[in-house]
Parts: sequence; C-alpha cells; structure tokens
Amino acid sequence: MSTRTISPGIVDAASVRKAVDRQLGEFLRERRTGFRHPRMADLVQLVEDFLAGGKRIRPTLTFLGWRAAGGEGDETAVLRVAASLEMFHSFALIHDDIMDDSDTRRGRPTIHRILAGRSPGERAEKFGIGAAVLLGDLVFTWSDQLLHTASLTRAQTEAVLPLVTEMRTEVMLGQYLDLRATGELTDDVEATLTVNRYKTAKYTVERPLHVGAALAGAGPDVLAACTAYALPLGEAFQLRDDLLGVYGDVRDTGKSRLDDLRSGKNTTLVALALRAGTPAQTARLRALLGDPALDEDGAEEVRAILAATGARDTVEHMIGDRRRQALRALDGAPFTPAAATALEHLAATATRRTS
Amino acid sequence: MSTRTISPGIVDAASVRKAVDRQLGEFLRERRTGFRHPRMADLVQLVEDFLAGGKRIRPTLTFLGWRAAGGEGDETAVLRVAASLEMFHSFALIHDDIMDDSDTRRGRPTIHRILAGRSPGERAEKFGIGAAVLLGDLVFTWSDQLLHTASLTRAQTEAVLPLVTEMRTEVMLGQYLDLRATGELTDDVEATLTVNRYKTAKYTVERPLHVGAALAGAGPDVLAACTAYALPLGEAFQLRDDLLGVYGDVRDTGKSRLDDLRSGKNTTLVALALRAGTPAQTARLRALLGDPALDEDGAEEVRAILAATGARDTVEHMIGDRRRQALRALDGAPFTPAAATALEHLAATATRRTS
Repeated sequence: MSTRTISPGIVDAASVRKAVDRQLGEFLRERRTGFRHPRMADLVQLVEDFLAGGKRIRPTLTFLGWRAAGGEGDETAVLRVAASLEMFHSFALIHDDIMDDSDTRRGRPTIHRILAGRSPGERAEKFGIGAAVLLGDLVFTWSDQLLHTASLTRAQTEAVLPLVTEMRTEVMLGQYLDLRATGELTDDVEATLTVNRYKTAKYTVERPLHVGAALAGAGPDVLAACTAYALPLGEAFQLRDDLLGVYGDVRDTGKSRLDDLRSGKNTTLVALALRAGTPAQTARLRALLGDPALDEDGAEEVRAILAATGARDTVEHMIGDRRRQALRALDGAPFTPAAATALEHLAATATRRTS
Repeated sequence: MSTRTISPGIVDAASVRKAVDRQLGEFLRERRTGFRHPRMADLVQLVEDFLAGGKRIRPTLTFLGWRAAGGEGDETAVLRVAASLEMFHSFALIHDDIMDDSDTRRGRPTIHRILAGRSPGERAEKFGIGAAVLLGDLVFTWSDQLLHTASLTRAQTEAVLPLVTEMRTEVMLGQYLDLRATGELTDDVEATLTVNRYKTAKYTVERPLHVGAALAGAGPDVLAACTAYALPLGEAFQLRDDLLGVYGDVRDTGKSRLDDLRSGKNTTLVALALRAGTPAQTARLRALLGDPALDEDGAEEVRAILAATGARDTVEHMIGDRRRQALRALDGAPFTPAAATALEHLAATATRRTS
C-alpha cells in the first residue's frame, strides 16, 4: 500500500475524513468484486449508502490519538484501523436501530426498514429484522477484516487488539444496560451516567483515542491523559445527544425526535426530571414516556415538563462542566501541540447545540 | 499456557471435546470475573448454559485438520482456535434462532425466549429479541478474543485469519440466501444446494478443517484434499439435518420438528417434492408449508406427501452418494493415517439417521 501523508504538522479533520473514506471505499469495492455471489453486491451497496451519512467522529479520534502520541510518517495503517472502527460503528448502529425499533437514521430509512421493503407480504417485517441482523453481522466481520489487513507490526497488534476487545465489550454491555432500562423509568441519575459511560464516553471517545495512541507506541501516561480528556467529553457528547433526541431538529440529527420518547429511553434528562418534578409532573411523564402512540402534542407536553422541572437546564450545565473538564485535561497533557489544538476544537464542536 | 497432549498417535473425539470444553470454561471464567460490572456475570452464565448442549463438530474438525496435516506437540494453540470456532457457532445459533423465530434449541428455550422471560409486560418480546441480538454480538466478540489470545506465530496468524474471514462471510451469505428463500417455496433444487454449500458444507466442515490444517502449515495439496472430503460430507450433513427437521425425534434433535415446516424453509427435500409432485400434492404442500399455525395433523400430511413424491428417498440416496464421495476422497489423501481414520469414522456418524 502506498504512503499517504494528510498534512504534516497540522491535523485537519476534513482531510482525515476524506482519507478514511478512501480506505472504506477501496475496501467495499474489493468486497463487491471479490466474493463470488451476485447477492453480495446488493449488500455491499446498502452498506456503502449507509456509511455515506456518518460524521466519522471515531476514526477522526483514532487519527488524533495517533498524532497526539507522536505518530508520524506513513499513515496507511492508522487510517485502515480508523476505517475499521467506523465500519464497526455501522454494525453497531444497524443492530441498535433494530433494538430501538427506529424508522430513520441519518435522514434515511433504517436498514431493517429498507430490507423489509424488499420482501412482499406478511413476512416483510420479520424478514427486515432477520436480514438486518445478518447484514450487521457481516459488517462486524468486515470491520475485523479491515483491522486484520492493516499490516500492523507485532507490537502494534499486541497493543491494539486488547483495546479493541475492551471497546467492543464495553459498548455491548452499555447497550444491554440501556435496553434493560428502557421502558422502566427511574430517577436513578447515577445509573443513567453509568450507561452513558459504557455506551458512549468509552466507546465513542476514549477507546478510539487509545487505539490511535497505541498504534504510535504510547505509554501509560499518554493513555491516562487520553482518558482524562475523553470521559468527560464523551459524557457531554451523550448528554447533548439526549437533548437533541427530544429538542433537536430532524434536519440536523437525521432521526425522529419522537423515537426516544416513544420507546421510554431512561436518559439522564428524564431521570433528573423524575427526581426534581412534582408528583403531578412525574405522573404525567410516566404516562407519556414509553407510549408507542405518543404524538407531537404529547411530545410537546413532555418537553415542557422537562424544561419546567429544570432538568433541561441541569443537563446544559452538566455539558458545560464536562466540556471544561475535558479542556482542562488538555493543559499539560503529554500530547503533540497540533493534536492538542485539534482535540480542543473537537471538544467545542462535538458538544454544541446543533448536531 | 501449559502443554497438553490429548493422545499421541490416535485421535479420540471425546478427548478433543473435553479439551475444547476446558478452554471454553477457562475463558468464560475469566470473562465472569474480569469485567467490572455485575450484569456481566448473568450474561456469561447464559452463554455457559447454552454452550453445554453443543456437539463440538467444528472444533473436532479443526483438531482433526491439524492432525491430518501433521500437527503434533503442544496442542494449546489449536485447542484455543478450535474453541474460538465453537464460540463463533454459538453466536451464529443465537442470531439464527431469532431469524427463524425458534422456541427451542438443544432441548431448552432459545436465548431470545429466555431473555424475554426476564422482562415483564408488553415489551417482553421486543426486549428478548434486542437483548439476544446483543448477547450474540458479545459472543462474536468473545470468539475473536479467543482467536487473538491463542498465541499463534506470525505464520499461523497469516494463514488462519483469511480463512476465518472467508468462513464468517460464507455462513452469513448462506444464512441471508436461506432467509430470502424462506416462505418463497420453489422447486429449484440447485438453489437449495447452493444455500446448503455456503451455510453448512463450507462453514461446518471445510473451513474448520482448513483452519486446523493451516495451523500445522498445510500446503495447497492438503487444503484441496480437505475440500474434496468436506464439501460432499457437509452437504450430506445438511441433507440429514433437513430430514431430521421434519421426521426427527425432538429427544434426539433438541428442536421442534414443526419449526422448519411452519416457517416454510425451502430445503432440498421440499424443492424435490415440489418438482416431483402431482399438481394436487404441490398445491397441498404450498398451502401447508409456511403456515405459522400448522399443527401435528398438518405436519403428518406434509410428511406423507414428502414421502409419496419420493423426495424423502431421493434425499436418503443423495446423503449416501455424498458420504461415499467423502470417503473416496480420503483414499490417497495426504493425511496422517490416524487423522484419516478419525475422519472416516466422523463421515459415518455425522450423517446417520439419528442426530
């Protein structure tokens, strides 16, 4: 594979994204032609369309972790590993949308809905779910294949694989805890933050940074500094996502703002409102949240209660606190200056009010 | 890890099974204690119970492939890789049972049914499916972890990983084709044999043998001999499974013999009957197969038609032909004599009339 240098010295997120997309595109082209069955091309196309909508947060963080720990020179291996994390994330979203029964993702129908549309008659829904489970499994296999073909050194392989295993295990446990809590509303704010830590803070921010840093041979001090920055930022990122899930604009988020409410997601926002609300307010919340037939009027009532109890403001404060904590962690972190600047910029943009 | 020698010279399937089970047991114990969240122990327990029922065909074949290609000495790595294939198979079955909407597996409720039973009220079914998708994903991650921690040499890793990727891709495509064909009955016998080849012959027999042989440094001649034995045997194995799915005894198979009929599985057996039947017979088959409310009387009628059209006998003949073809492939194969003897024994037992 050729040596590709994105930009010596500075780190530009748009260039990282482009370079990761080139890796993903090349890989999918090989899948389309390399497997001797005509159906494979359809499946590759579905994944290609799905991937087009992503923001590439995780691969960008992998690249930044590599640069932060002093990685330089040939970027092919780090881009391939970064692409593998993005592929893994597609797998996770495909399965997540089945579990959450979501209709839209990235402004388009979810994979199980697209596949259901390809089966006529009464089996359509079951076929859509089954085929999307399988397609997700295939995408998981592809993320592994990207990783295995990244031409890592023995030392890189030994440093990276345990982190990837931890990352996968953490997000699956986080999703499991989230699923268990859905529809069983509690005011246990701490429990919601534990789910947040596993399913988002570690998965979306800490582990991608760790993986990149490990590729550059980072020692424990650099990994610890990644964690100090990543966990508060990741929590802030999920708290912002919880707010966008209720108050966001579908044109920005690409997903319906009724899904979380209808499924009765026990977010930190909801737990805070249940803790702070009057008996009348909490009774209304419990009646409305988790109702699969909730309409826009009901959603407006929920939004008003979440604001009136002060939960919405509290979450905004929590986001601000955590963003500042992440920025403070960059002071004196043993990172290269260009990467530290890019991480500072990312902390601001990933937690702002529009997605 | 210690050096464990199962039995120098001869290959005894019961000892292989025991040694693989020891690997699986040790690995799950580490998962139970190694991850810092109490819910993890519940999930590990579910997987441990599920694994207890397996026949270990794939890990046995991996071990036999290793021996056939001259593998000897320290068996720890091959047993670990063999255990990884068994773990992968558990993942595949957990997801397969969701897709097929099966109630029982290995004589017990399926994972999604067990998990549904742990959620009260109207969300139970959805929770069961979502949680089983996640648990399957976790088991997939574990199969990778077993593989990554098998302490393979660089040469072994480079030989084995591409085969594992092929194996995973093939079974997922096979399952996808199977799912597409379910409920859409055709007399296209060739199409059913293509699905069989991907989802069973390659996945269950050829690739496990290849993986074991590759661990012993097998060249193309040994791999080709594995294929010559594996594909006919694997096809015979699936044809037997199709018969057992309709005529088998639940006490032997551990799964209901109504599932395949109710879901309208387009097996080779069914395709042959649709091809050979009179218009009246095929009309009845089309009316009965795929009916989710099919009862034992209806199933008896299907069984009688499958027999009367000659499809049942044809499948028995196909099994016999393929078993003999597999045995012929062993003549002159460049395998060690002890492994060839064990493969001969396996060809007989894996295709006989009880499961």
